[in-house]
Amino acid sequence: MSQFLIAPSILSADFARLGDDVARVLDAGADVVHFDVMDNHYVPNLTFGPMVCQALRAYGITAPIDVHLMVKPVDSLIPEFAKAGASIITFHPEASEHIDRSLALIKENGCEAGLVFNPATPLHYLDYVMDKVDQILLMSVNPGFGGQSFIPNTLDKLRQVRERIDASGRPIRLEVDGGVKVDNIAEIAAAGADMFVAGSAIFSQPDYKQVIDAMRAELAKV
Amino acid sequence: MSQFLIAPSILSADFARLGDDVARVLDAGADVVHFDVMDNHYVPNLTFGPMVCQALRAYGITAPIDVHLMVKPVDSLIPEFAKAGASIITFHPEASEHIDRSLALIKENGCEAGLVFNPATPLHYLDYVMDKVDQILLMSVNPGFGGQSFIPNTLDKLRQVRERIDASGRPIRLEVDGGVKVDNIAEIAAAGADMFVAGSAIFSQPDYKQVIDAMRAELAKV
Amino acid sequence: MSQFLIAPSILSADFARLGDDVARVLDAGADVVHFDVMDNHYVPNLTFGPMVCQALRAYGITAPIDVHLMVKPVDSLIPEFAKAGASIITFHPEASEHIDRSLALIKENGCEAGLVFNPATPLHYLDYVMDKVDQILLMSVNPGFGGQSFIPNTLDKLRQVRERIDASGRPIRLEVDGGVKVDNIAEIAAAGADMFVAGSAIFSQPDYKQVIDAMRAELAKV
Amino acid sequence: MSQFLIAPSILSADFARLGDDVARVLDAGADVVHFDVMDNHYVPNLTFGPMVCQALRAYGITAPIDVHLMVKPVDSLIPEFAKAGASIITFHPEASEHIDRSLALIKENGCEAGLVFNPATPLHYLDYVMDKVDQILLMSVNPGFGGQSFIPNTLDKLRQVRERIDASGRPIRLEVDGGVKVDNIAEIAAAGADMFVAGSAIFSQPDYKQVIDAMRAELAKV
Amino acid sequence: MSQFLIAPSILSADFARLGDDVARVLDAGADVVHFDVMDNHYVPNLTFGPMVCQALRAYGITAPIDVHLMVKPVDSLIPEFAKAGASIITFHPEASEHIDRSLALIKENGCEAGLVFNPATPLHYLDYVMDKVDQILLMSVNPGFGGQSFIPNTLDKLRQVRERIDASGRPIRLEVDGGVKVDNIAEIAAAGADMFVAGSAIFSQPDYKQVIDAMRAELAKV
Amino acid sequence: MSQFLIAPSILSADFARLGDDVARVLDAGADVVHFDVMDNHYVPNLTFGPMVCQALRAYGITAPIDVHLMVKPVDSLIPEFAKAGASIITFHPEASEHIDRSLALIKENGCEAGLVFNPATPLHYLDYVMDKVDQILLMSVNPGFGGQSFIPNTLDKLRQVRERIDASGRPIRLEVDGGVKVDNIAEIAAAGADMFVAGSAIFSQPDYKQVIDAMRAELAKV
Repeated sequence: MSQFLIAPSILSADFARLGDDVARVLDAGADVVHFDVMDNHYVPNLTFGPMVCQALRAYGITAPIDVHLMVKPVDSLIPEFAKAGASIITFHPEASEHIDRSLALIKENGCEAGLVFNPATPLHYLDYVMDKVDQILLMSVNPGFGGQSFIPNTLDKLRQVRERIDASGRPIRLEVDGGVKVDNIAEIAAAGADMFVAGSAIFSQPDYKQVIDAMRAELAKV
Repeated sequence: MSQFLIAPSILSADFARLGDDVARVLDAGADVVHFDVMDNHYVPNLTFGPMVCQALRAYGITAPIDVHLMVKPVDSLIPEFAKAGASIITFHPEASEHIDRSLALIKENGCEAGLVFNPATPLHYLDYVMDKVDQILLMSVNPGFGGQSFIPNTLDKLRQVRERIDASGRPIRLEVDGGVKVDNIAEIAAAGADMFVAGSAIFSQPDYKQVIDAMRAELAKV
Repeated sequence: MSQFLIAPSILSADFARLGDDVARVLDAGADVVHFDVMDNHYVPNLTFGPMVCQALRAYGITAPIDVHLMVKPVDSLIPEFAKAGASIITFHPEASEHIDRSLALIKENGCEAGLVFNPATPLHYLDYVMDKVDQILLMSVNPGFGGQSFIPNTLDKLRQVRERIDASGRPIRLEVDGGVKVDNIAEIAAAGADMFVAGSAIFSQPDYKQVIDAMRAELAKV
Repeated sequence: MSQFLIAPSILSADFARLGDDVARVLDAGADVVHFDVMDNHYVPNLTFGPMVCQALRAYGITAPIDVHLMVKPVDSLIPEFAKAGASIITFHPEASEHIDRSLALIKENGCEAGLVFNPATPLHYLDYVMDKVDQILLMSVNPGFGGQSFIPNTLDKLRQVRERIDASGRPIRLEVDGGVKVDNIAEIAAAGADMFVAGSAIFSQPDYKQVIDAMRAELAKV
Repeated sequence: MSQFLIAPSILSADFARLGDDVARVLDAGADVVHFDVMDNHYVPNLTFGPMVCQALRAYGITAPIDVHLMVKPVDSLIPEFAKAGASIITFHPEASEHIDRSLALIKENGCEAGLVFNPATPLHYLDYVMDKVDQILLMSVNPGFGGQSFIPNTLDKLRQVRERIDASGRPIRLEVDGGVKVDNIAEIAAAGADMFVAGSAIFSQPDYKQVIDAMRAELAKV
Repeated sequence: MSQFLIAPSILSADFARLGDDVARVLDAGADVVHFDVMDNHYVPNLTFGPMVCQALRAYGITAPIDVHLMVKPVDSLIPEFAKAGASIITFHPEASEHIDRSLALIKENGCEAGLVFNPATPLHYLDYVMDKVDQILLMSVNPGFGGQSFIPNTLDKLRQVRERIDASGRPIRLEVDGGVKVDNIAEIAAAGADMFVAGSAIFSQPDYKQVIDAMRAELAKV
């Protein structure tokens, strides 16, 4: 992977032609395939489960698949997604009674592990897991609800997480999801993020490569 | 629709090429597209939500879409699936606190409504809704669990439901789901079913038309 | 109490002048004060709890208070309503893990006990409790949802419950709630009901006595 | 096993000397060891789990162990109790979303399977499982609550289940639990039961053999 | 509103004459009407819902209504209370999966928004919402339980919140609820509170004005 | 009690001879009997409830009994364990909606009270309860899961809690549970712990006294 990772969310892809659409966005330069998994309990929406992951692997997609679990509880889906081909699995600390255990479960199943923070969730959940996470995802919108813009104080929160990561000395990725676009990606990267989820910003455009190139051009300025 | 309806479950379709796979199975003679919606709460599995329905409609699929909700609670997903293009929505009586209300909600949203019965669920839930259902689905395996065969006493249960439907004088469809194959479909139809869900029995074969034709040939003997 | 009981639901009364409004409806000839208790979990609405019962007793209301619990679970509120002055407490069988126990708990707390049936709820829950209930309430609309009319097949269900009551030889009251009005009360009574909840049908009128007298006149024809 | 089985509930045994107490009651003529497993969710009490079963097997107890799950949900404990040495596992139909599946799971784990009926629970849950149960347990008190006597209308319910069992032609045991004593065991057996749980009736007496012999003497009169 | 706001809790008012009692306490000098909304799930008590708010508005009460939701989950009641006339809505951060979203929902519905802190709840939930709250409520007793006194270490917690508010530069109200009386209100105000909920301290007295005047006299000393 | 307390967990004792086994471990020098109470909801395992506590007291065990509740919710079991003879009751802050109230409830029932922290649970839950806890338990493995080793960063967390305790000036015990053995107990004590739970480390050995003496010898070096 390059220094900055672009992770298109398939939530905005064409589910009738998913293999092709995902292959196209990877050909256009995307680094990681992002999965927004919602169970209609932790968030008010139902999206898709492990079978979609498995279908993409069977189709021939080899890029890393980054699974963001917006489900509660989380443990039973972890081995299912691992078996289906997930590379990274992240979950919300409020959604597991046993955070340390869920992180360990992800690793035992051969995936990288991470925690996700809702816009108002404080960072203290990181206090005793910095040696166990490979990735931290900050939500810059509320997950499971449509039509939102990037929440501005995410920038401060990114800077605070970046400090914690630097202090840990570990190569933890700092991902951001929600309202990321060409015109704010540089500012977000400057605040510390190095992995960027984008959904409709990419998939709503006719030319994925143009958007991703524009994002990379912005990132090059940071 | 013909007298007997064949409803392939997209659970067994190729999710990387879903539009194409569904179009193929419809071209091969299937009548209805069947959706197995699981939320990892009512059943131990997470499959897919309204967005997949919407994607198929956008792709151009115009056949009826028959949504089987294996979720709990059910009400919030009903308008979402209706908006996404569902034609029929069924749910389990144990999964709604207000069965009459959920049936009404489906109809207010412009869809046909039905109840689904697990293998051990008794039929008394039909006592006061025969004037409100358009379809009754009997599960002949346990929903959400893999690798099961058709449960034999479903045949008796089908006969009992058929009697209730005939007594009602209403054109209620009697659907069956689980382990339906070419070699048992005639017996199942003889017991009273007129709508048949089949997943891997169809999608695991190279030639969908051959399977569906074989099913129709069996049905013609009833 | 007279043969037919009229039970105005205070859900439609004026909560800013509740004591006065309830006293007025009782002066107008109502027999029983009906409480629709909703907890925003069993039904999608929150109404009121034991404190309102206590306030009416403190105000001087001495008529029987008939508490319909649309809550889940039910046991913790039973002693609270009994202490607050309830006379009768009914609950939905689906809302208690231990129906026999909840009925016993109501009686141990000095109240009469009953079960409530949603429009689609079958009557089998009565099979082993006919010796323990003092009242059976049939919902003729879905509880907790507004703007509904009397569901017609409630009449058949009333006749079936009436048969069970007659067969039991016990003086069990048969109450109906939902869409009861002057112009259908006679038909409902003819089907077997002897206790009638009415909310806006009474409280929305300027002259409560006129409505109640009209109801009684209709009932006299049965 | 003899025709009538006596199953002392270890809930009333001495948990500080459990191996010895269970051995003594078996030496005194008891047939089966009965486990009342409560999780403080399905019933308001927490008793004990699989580790106690395992400890009795390690101690050398070889009699059948009959596990009554008063827990919700039930599936995760089934393999645990099977591994710990259970012979029979029963559960409440209201406590499983998938009754047929839970019964199958018990059998896949090498145990006999059964359903338990609370005092007010109707028998319709038996309609489609008579070919899958080895045992039916009728509660003659409410499980999880102390100080109750045998509920009289259990006798009628026993006769109804006995009829269903005879009609099935299968050797299903009919067990009863709650308030069974020397002075009512004959009447209960006459109504159709052939397996009798007794807790304090046995363990509260100094001489277990005397009680069990007295029970057998009563049963011999049936 | 004046600098210090006195908010009588109608939990202690006379529910049989609520409009009159609320009008009297406002005439006596109270600033805000405080609603303690309990759903018997988040707290072990059921009080009242939106209909009481609506009744007070219909009666002619025009003072701000401050709704404290002791319910879980919170989102469905927010639009209901807004429609019923609420001015301010606060909720507990532990009771919403999506705190930022619930705050936004309150504002979209035209009300002011706030968070409530139980006595042991830490303040970190404020870390990323100081730009979104209009009010912060510290509980100085445990909500939903009776007969408690002001918890002394609330004073330190008030000082800490006051610092956060001052640092934010925003005009956020700091409300306190539980055991507030004439003889401790000055000390509480000195610690940083500017809005005071009082229930029985006011409503249990014959002369509301005398209590409120005494409170204001104490507040004038701060 | 001595300066350092050794608390064997009966989870690893022989449940067929529990009274004897517990007496033996106390004779061997243990200070406190530790109870791991699991309800199969907060953790994926069911162990035992108050009846076991009561049986040990009836057997003659007089040592302090330290009850660690791995249950959710917690309040209903508190009076039950107190009545059964518990000396200390601890619970997880995530498992109670009202932490301050649950702590008070333990004390009202005559027991000492404490909070338990899972490996990833941050310490902020201590911010407003240091004047109310008698004991703080840090989990050094994930509760309810088998086969884990002492999590190393527990040592840092112990040092941080020790600082908070020293700052409070109160005699709060600092307990640790999970993977404590002869060869790491000194290091753990040096980090600030003064109470040590050990299960199989003691009960799996033939000579309990030898293990406990070895632990004390290690502790003497601190």
